Amino acid sequence: MTKRVWDQFLTERDQQVFEAAGYGQRAGFGKRPVLIVIDVNYNFTGDRPEPILESITRWPNSCGEDAWEAMRHIKRLLHAVRTKGLPVIYSTGDRRADGWDRGSWSWKNKRTRQWGAGHDLTQTHLDGNAINHEIAPMPQDIVIKKLKPSAFHGTPLSSFLTRFQADSIIMVGTTTSGCVRASVLDAFSENYRVTLAEEGCFDRSEASHAINLCDMQAKYADVASTDECIAYIESLPGGLFELPAGAPD
Amino acid sequence: MTKRVWDQFLTERDQQVFEAAGYGQRAGFGKRPVLIVIDVNYNFTGDRPEPILESITRWPNSCGEDAWEAMRHIKRLLHAVRTKGLPVIYSTGDRRADGWDRGSWSWKNKRTRQWGAGHDLTQTHLDGNAINHEIAPMPQDIVIKKLKPSAFHGTPLSSFLTRFQADSIIMVGTTTSGCVRASVLDAFSENYRVTLAEEGCFDRSEASHAINLCDMQAKYADVASTDECIAYIESLPGGLFELPAGAPD
Amino acid sequence: MTKRVWDQFLTERDQQVFEAAGYGQRAGFGKRPVLIVIDVNYNFTGDRPEPILESITRWPNSCGEDAWEAMRHIKRLLHAVRTKGLPVIYSTGDRRADGWDRGSWSWKNKRTRQWGAGHDLTQTHLDGNAINHEIAPMPQDIVIKKLKPSAFHGTPLSSFLTRFQADSIIMVGTTTSGCVRASVLDAFSENYRVTLAEEGCFDRSEASHAINLCDMQAKYADVASTDECIAYIESLPGGLFELPAGAPD
Amino acid sequence: MTKRVWDQFLTERDQQVFEAAGYGQRAGFGKRPVLIVIDVNYNFTGDRPEPILESITRWPNSCGEDAWEAMRHIKRLLHAVRTKGLPVIYSTGDRRADGWDRGSWSWKNKRTRQWGAGHDLTQTHLDGNAINHEIAPMPQDIVIKKLKPSAFHGTPLSSFLTRFQADSIIMVGTTTSGCVRASVLDAFSENYRVTLAEEGCFDRSEASHAINLCDMQAKYADVASTDECIAYIESLPGGLFELPAGAPD
Repeated sequence: MTKRVWDQFLTERDQQVFEAAGYGQRAGFGKRPVLIVIDVNYNFTGDRPEPILESITRWPNSCGEDAWEAMRHIKRLLHAVRTKGLPVIYSTGDRRADGWDRGSWSWKNKRTRQWGAGHDLTQTHLDGNAINHEIAPMPQDIVIKKLKPSAFHGTPLSSFLTRFQADSIIMVGTTTSGCVRASVLDAFSENYRVTLAEEGCFDRSEASHAINLCDMQAKYADVASTDECIAYIESLPGGLFELPAGAPD
Repeated sequence: MTKRVWDQFLTERDQQVFEAAGYGQRAGFGKRPVLIVIDVNYNFTGDRPEPILESITRWPNSCGEDAWEAMRHIKRLLHAVRTKGLPVIYSTGDRRADGWDRGSWSWKNKRTRQWGAGHDLTQTHLDGNAINHEIAPMPQDIVIKKLKPSAFHGTPLSSFLTRFQADSIIMVGTTTSGCVRASVLDAFSENYRVTLAEEGCFDRSEASHAINLCDMQAKYADVASTDECIAYIESLPGGLFELPAGAPD
Repeated sequence: MTKRVWDQFLTERDQQVFEAAGYGQRAGFGKRPVLIVIDVNYNFTGDRPEPILESITRWPNSCGEDAWEAMRHIKRLLHAVRTKGLPVIYSTGDRRADGWDRGSWSWKNKRTRQWGAGHDLTQTHLDGNAINHEIAPMPQDIVIKKLKPSAFHGTPLSSFLTRFQADSIIMVGTTTSGCVRASVLDAFSENYRVTLAEEGCFDRSEASHAINLCDMQAKYADVASTDECIAYIESLPGGLFELPAGAPD
Repeated sequence: MTKRVWDQFLTERDQQVFEAAGYGQRAGFGKRPVLIVIDVNYNFTGDRPEPILESITRWPNSCGEDAWEAMRHIKRLLHAVRTKGLPVIYSTGDRRADGWDRGSWSWKNKRTRQWGAGHDLTQTHLDGNAINHEIAPMPQDIVIKKLKPSAFHGTPLSSFLTRFQADSIIMVGTTTSGCVRASVLDAFSENYRVTLAEEGCFDRSEASHAINLCDMQAKYADVASTDECIAYIESLPGGLFELPAGAPD
């Protein structure tokens, strides 16, 4: 069996237990997938590839160079998905000018005041919640604004998936242990099949990235290579979806 | 600073990153807490304390001896909470006889048919979804039946918390990386303050237990000792809540 | 244009306004419908057909004879739906023995204590939340227990619809102005096409029945005859859905 | 008993049935209320007071003069609520430039393309989703963008109410039979006490306005005079809430 990124973090007993408990079965792809790209905005990528501990001084939520490496793979996925005419949904953060809607985030993080005001520290004039230009949305794509980890929580995402008659989700983005995991959880709970394109997921913590992939692969989603996801997408028939027009009506 | 259970699993960089990013601040307790006990039923505890790999042969979801150790602490919490008159809410699984409502679970686990029929394997005639007798609910307690990880998903839990005018949750149960984490996430997203009583949480995987506590402590909840939770509960004024009557009306 | 039941209740201006505002367009049926039967239990039908004001003395929520007339049509629909192999979902009420979970209902209705204890008044030993025997669920059907008006609220219904890959709902039941309307609203908001089979819907109030059908027809759903619904169902291809097994697994 | 606006629409039997069934009990005010103003934007008020059938030619959703009369009362409520320091939450519509997110609305209304482009018809350059200037939000107020009738559906509203530790809602706005009713329903289902300030609610249909007030008064909310709501607000202690700062942080 192939080595997985989480193997090094598991204890010996853990390996046996997951197997014995029956977890980790392959769910498989669905028939009507959408691509969801979670929170790949400047807050989480920074404005340029640089070591995470440097980037984080200006962008408190930055995941550093791993974000830029992941975006290379997200780009490939976006290309395949757009070529095939599948829906693309991005999520990103939102905030009031006075920051009141941070709510519970402000209880657990002491730098939340810098989340929406990165330009003060970075002098880039970039909006931290803007999707990174490397993988910017196109007019027919859908952008979901959210306040909490899951792209489903307090948003119309589930109604959009029903509208598309989607049965499955290919997901990438950040952080693996935060907004990706929360979104996977809600998708699983709503009975969508979920596949994570592994190289398109990133996190600020190496252990959290690995173990959260492990948890999701065990219980909620398939963790597959981007290549496999692309091969699957290319195998689908065209014309599956009627996409948003993009142009003003 | 005290050693935490997750320290050994983190890389050196991870430790620096969490600190630099501002995560892990103490949220603090609220003023109107309820206790939520997640899924401490026979499916997850087995019918007796025994090594996890033995227990798991008969109870696929069992967490083995750790469950019974955790129940010792949950009992102490229940005593404090009941003495003070705070609401107690349990969650547990539910299922149709034909298992159709397992939905996405059956995609990821190959032993789901054994989840509700543990007695076939165990010859104990115990219902796997019954709360373990060691910490059995009392008539005035609330039991939430659920199909998916979070105690909020597809259940009336949020309306119950509003009814109680709760502002915070003390949570224990299992698995740390599964239903506990999912429930913490939803509670955080609904702007409840959450404290995990650490010794009352358990999991089948040691690494998942540790890293999920780490993730939650960083971003969504305080991970405190059971002693600290009890001291806080004892410090509260009495008569905060009007509890369910328990007796038929 | 055909006379509708609500016409007599509308003012002349109302008729002009609905038309001018563009409301009331036909949405049309979908391709993968499920049938949802809302709350046709003894609480709302009583134990026998009798004038509403008599029935209501023993069954506070009873809709009287209209319920029994509607059940004739619901039966016909059930027959068509089962013949075609479409999913059937029932909703009904639930309650704790102590009635605590009535919550907000107890603020607005002074007879809620009698809701779950109809047999005290009726001496029939019937559970008020049991689906009426005239249209009783079969083993492969799905029964949703709920506390509030909408069959979606605090229940796993939306995850079941995703599981079925349903795109539309045919709905009947009671009360038109209460649980039916609330369920239609949530279905509409989740982007499901909804058709009400008119003769299968009933209410305790004549005006509320008529005007709520009017509101729904204008904005959220099509109000069609049961005959038209049945003709549509019969026109569908067979084998659209994999239904629950019904038998224990 | 006072004459109510809905009395003329009810049949004689209806009057008896509501009373016999135990509905219509007064729920009473809570202790920590917020004010919610539903969808009082130009789409529903038009740009000036004029007869509804004229206004509707340019603003398809307009409720005509009744909107402007209701705003007089909403203003009074806003004054009382702001004086007392209670939270004010507005809801309004949202839309993509290409209108894709209208979803199910476009199935039932043939003029939806004009909803967001009222200025084409009106030449006022007003955004139809902007809150009417007569009752414009202030910086510390909260504005919820939504796609569907209920202010709770697909929005973070419930998490905001938890943040405020609100136990009750005073609601006004439009349409009584549409977004107001849907929001009342969800608030009721989440166990909030709801009071409608009657003169602050308006609709395009006279019958729908009356009967929906009747339904809500019977089952889900108290329908009270604006004067009574203001007297209650004035009776509350000051300093109940910590409001959003309003100014950028």
